[in-house]
Amino acid sequence: MRMYDLIEKKKQGKELTKEEIDYIISEYSLNEIPDYQMSAFLMAVYFKGMTMDETVNLTMAMANSGDTLDLSAIDGIKVDKHSTGGVGDKTSLIVAPMLASLGVPIAKMSGRGLGHTGGTIDKLESFRGFKTSLSEEAFIKQVNDIKLALVGQTANLAPADKKIYALRDVTATVNQKSLIASSIMSKKIAAGADSIILDVKCGSGAFMENLKDAEELARIMVSIGEMVGRQTVAIISDMNEPLGHYVGNALEVYEAIEVLSGRGEERLKELCITIASYMLIGGKKAESFEDAREKMERVIREGKALDKLAEFVNAQGGDMNQVYHPDQLPKAMYRKELLAPNEGYLTACKTSEVGMASLILGGGRETKESEIDLSVGIRMDKKLGDHVDKGEVMGVIFANDADLFKPAYDRLINAYTISEKLQEPEALIKKVITRKDVMV
Amino acid sequence: MRMYDLIEKKKQGKELTKEEIDYIISEYSLNEIPDYQMSAFLMAVYFKGMTMDETVNLTMAMANSGDTLDLSAIDGIKVDKHSTGGVGDKTSLIVAPMLASLGVPIAKMSGRGLGHTGGTIDKLESFRGFKTSLSEEAFIKQVNDIKLALVGQTANLAPADKKIYALRDVTATVNQKSLIASSIMSKKIAAGADSIILDVKCGSGAFMENLKDAEELARIMVSIGEMVGRQTVAIISDMNEPLGHYVGNALEVYEAIEVLSGRGEERLKELCITIASYMLIGGKKAESFEDAREKMERVIREGKALDKLAEFVNAQGGDMNQVYHPDQLPKAMYRKELLAPNEGYLTACKTSEVGMASLILGGGRETKESEIDLSVGIRMDKKLGDHVDKGEVMGVIFANDADLFKPAYDRLINAYTISEKLQEPEALIKKVITRKDVMV
Repeated sequence: MRMYDLIEKKKQGKELTKEEIDYIISEYSLNEIPDYQMSAFLMAVYFKGMTMDETVNLTMAMANSGDTLDLSAIDGIKVDKHSTGGVGDKTSLIVAPMLASLGVPIAKMSGRGLGHTGGTIDKLESFRGFKTSLSEEAFIKQVNDIKLALVGQTANLAPADKKIYALRDVTATVNQKSLIASSIMSKKIAAGADSIILDVKCGSGAFMENLKDAEELARIMVSIGEMVGRQTVAIISDMNEPLGHYVGNALEVYEAIEVLSGRGEERLKELCITIASYMLIGGKKAESFEDAREKMERVIREGKALDKLAEFVNAQGGDMNQVYHPDQLPKAMYRKELLAPNEGYLTACKTSEVGMASLILGGGRETKESEIDLSVGIRMDKKLGDHVDKGEVMGVIFANDADLFKPAYDRLINAYTISEKLQEPEALIKKVITRKDVMV
Repeated sequence: MRMYDLIEKKKQGKELTKEEIDYIISEYSLNEIPDYQMSAFLMAVYFKGMTMDETVNLTMAMANSGDTLDLSAIDGIKVDKHSTGGVGDKTSLIVAPMLASLGVPIAKMSGRGLGHTGGTIDKLESFRGFKTSLSEEAFIKQVNDIKLALVGQTANLAPADKKIYALRDVTATVNQKSLIASSIMSKKIAAGADSIILDVKCGSGAFMENLKDAEELARIMVSIGEMVGRQTVAIISDMNEPLGHYVGNALEVYEAIEVLSGRGEERLKELCITIASYMLIGGKKAESFEDAREKMERVIREGKALDKLAEFVNAQGGDMNQVYHPDQLPKAMYRKELLAPNEGYLTACKTSEVGMASLILGGGRETKESEIDLSVGIRMDKKLGDHVDKGEVMGVIFANDADLFKPAYDRLINAYTISEKLQEPEALIKKVITRKDVMV
């Protein structure tokens, strides 16, 4: 087999066999196929696409390119969730304790990654003393004991995906749905869960800007999951403004505690309950969506989900006192109010610009080496559909370097459109894609 | 400017500016743009194409990436020719002395390259003592004195094209017409001629297998030439079987002498006269095609073209005696007749397979390091349209290693289709594309 011929074959729009895809992934992993051939191949895939069989074969080849976790020592059905990424997305911090409090085992490994804020693991370091690494035995024991463990990724999951993603990132071949879907699913499959709930973001702050693209990506991922025996559901949710009121690390932990305490912003709460309900069904602890939803509302109302968060933070060495006294979470030194430049209704948000403001403040990583400032970030009091008077406080910027107020402020002001006429915000949950939507 | 953005722009099918193309070529030449970005870009060009302006800008950026020859010290209009490559193509050996004998200066630098046989320069080494390198002064003096010099390429012509071609060759991005056209024309423009005659081959032994593709390529090349002020004509000629009777190096020199002596195969002779006539018009030494043709036939008839070849061989240190006694050219030790496997008409030829047979015998270079055997090759007595009886001699294989007869023989036999029904061979000259065909 020669890579040259496989590039040519894909260029002509022909379907590659499993053997051919396995060859590409294994030889590229071994550096036997050079980057310049791989990038030409990826560009051909961009133009010619991949069939579902090719996509599944690519996913499995990448999933099997490194460690694959064996979670069989954990009792019960293991459920995992993944979000395609949005601004202010703290749903994992909320749904994980909700599910654990209902007996669904959550054994999650998270990467730190790059972005507007840190990942879930970074955010959890807002708790004093919180340990993000556990031995494999301790990890499994903790999940069996308290149903919840969240650690930094130590296993070498899907290294071929990592290598290919790095190449796509510099050759303008990221935005191809089969490549996106196989990248996400290869890691989820290697991570070992029995059931996978995907939160596919759609809107100005997401990779998929419209429903059609988001739905297509969702269908591909659900198909992959189901074809390899993992029960998979994708929820397509709105990302036309940041999720909830807060963007940052400790600030998002604070907001997660708010939701688990029965308060919190409505749409954020609604999304968490929806995701958690599908996860509960995936974990076979609820009969129907209504049943699941009722259980979710109860664990919040009765404080069981919040107690589970505290138990989990404590188990990983963190200060559980901060869960009950979130005012003790890290705080930035300075704050500056964001004032409405004119009167009207908030009708649009360039969501990724809000994320950029958080990055500027130091809340995220620009490169792998960047240090995250856990305490900085943004609170947006006003949401799409709200009315503001000229000069009214729209939100607050939290910073540790007063020089950063200006660039962050400008980004935020420019991110929002204020119009005379009210425009109803888009629905939060746009669609749910399950097995029955993709299987024929 | 960032290469990433330029890949994305081309991926979206947008037109790149001159500055953007200059940036790509200069930075890639400096190794500032990595191969993996360039190959992704080239694949995007394969799918999205290039406009005429982009193609001209690419050509000139590559032409200016290295040395550009200044032929102004040579008197008269300098005319160059280029063939897109075919099997048994010895036209340069024939047309160069024809034109020089009529006073058109031919100052040609040829690469050695890879292929079924050597290049023109390799073939000329069949003359004992022939020197393929001359100092710049000697080169120019010779052209001014006898109107003809043919040397190996020493100048660093269009190095960016060389680097890009090597990458295209391993990433399945060779067959894109703007890339092919700019690659050819960048070298021709850097080589300094005022007028360029292109022989675009079309058929089973050529890169362009059908007339539509050949014509499109021809139009692009003529447009490039005319847009940068070089008078350019493209002749689209048939390559559905080897040109003439011979494939090899010394064998092709022999056949060239045959044509210059007023003998030789009809179609080969016709093609040479056609190319030479357009070159004569380009050199402003003829009023019309009929006038040029008549002059060409005369220099053959009167022996002036043959004498010019002898004068030229002598000027470059070769044994001119071999021109008048071509039986003294290098000869292979062994010969084997090719016998028709059955009775019928020759109706089709996989021309490139005949070329492969020559390569197998040692007549061409497989890698840059290969040594060429000047004496080996093939003579095909039968041409498309001819009738053969079973067992009749179709041609002869000339070899210096008897073990090579079998593989060469098999290739040759399999290259030809013998059918019951006669099929008329395709026209030799399929089309001529000039300035008026491309300018609006």
